[in-house]
Amino acid sequence: MPNQQQVQLDRVFHALGDPTRRAVLRRLSSGPAGVSELARPFRMALPSFTQHLGVLEECGLVRSRKTGRVRTYHLVPKPLKAAEKWMTEQLALWETRLDQLDGYLMQMKEKEE
Amino acid sequence: MPNQQQVQLDRVFHALGDPTRRAVLRRLSSGPAGVSELARPFRMALPSFTQHLGVLEECGLVRSRKTGRVRTYHLVPKPLKAAEKWMTEQLALWETRLDQLDGYLMQMKEKEE
Repeated sequence: MPNQQQVQLDRVFHALGDPTRRAVLRRLSSGPAGVSELARPFRMALPSFTQHLGVLEECGLVRSRKTGRVRTYHLVPKPLKAAEKWMTEQLALWETRLDQLDGYLMQMKEKEE
Repeated sequence: MPNQQQVQLDRVFHALGDPTRRAVLRRLSSGPAGVSELARPFRMALPSFTQHLGVLEECGLVRSRKTGRVRTYHLVPKPLKAAEKWMTEQLALWETRLDQLDGYLMQMKEKEE
């Protein structure tokens, strides 16, 4: 896998490893929103919250647009799709492996009987 | 989502946010392996490498077993399945949202024409 894709995966998984950031993504799936609306459900100082938004924006999961004095955030599905693709591939490999293991255990059992 | 599941997701995504740890998981999908075999492809001091193994074991993605003096690592698919479930759900929500947006844009276009 090219190095840039690796770095992108690092960032996306890192961004997903936090409940506040996952909650923000969930909220944005019902439509774009401004910082104060996004921050409302969390007991957190605004600078800490905007850091979370920064992490999400850096890895490409969200983008923001400034209209006048209001900055609005919206989702970008592509990086999540890439990360999900990695996971699906891994699970397919793992399941093949587990099937092989099952087959091996069955053979061992048959030999014993 | 119960808090324990959130913490588990935090840990799994954190564990996946590193190329060495992802490479170890990929290697283990072809079968269990010992520390020295797992460490071989990486230019890394053994203590750093075993820290990575520790992160993978803590979040439940791998388990290890000691036979005599040899510790062998193997995969545990369940935590990855849970993380993939979260991603699939998000993507479904996002796609619904994007479809709605498409519909809205089509309506706007029709009104303009």
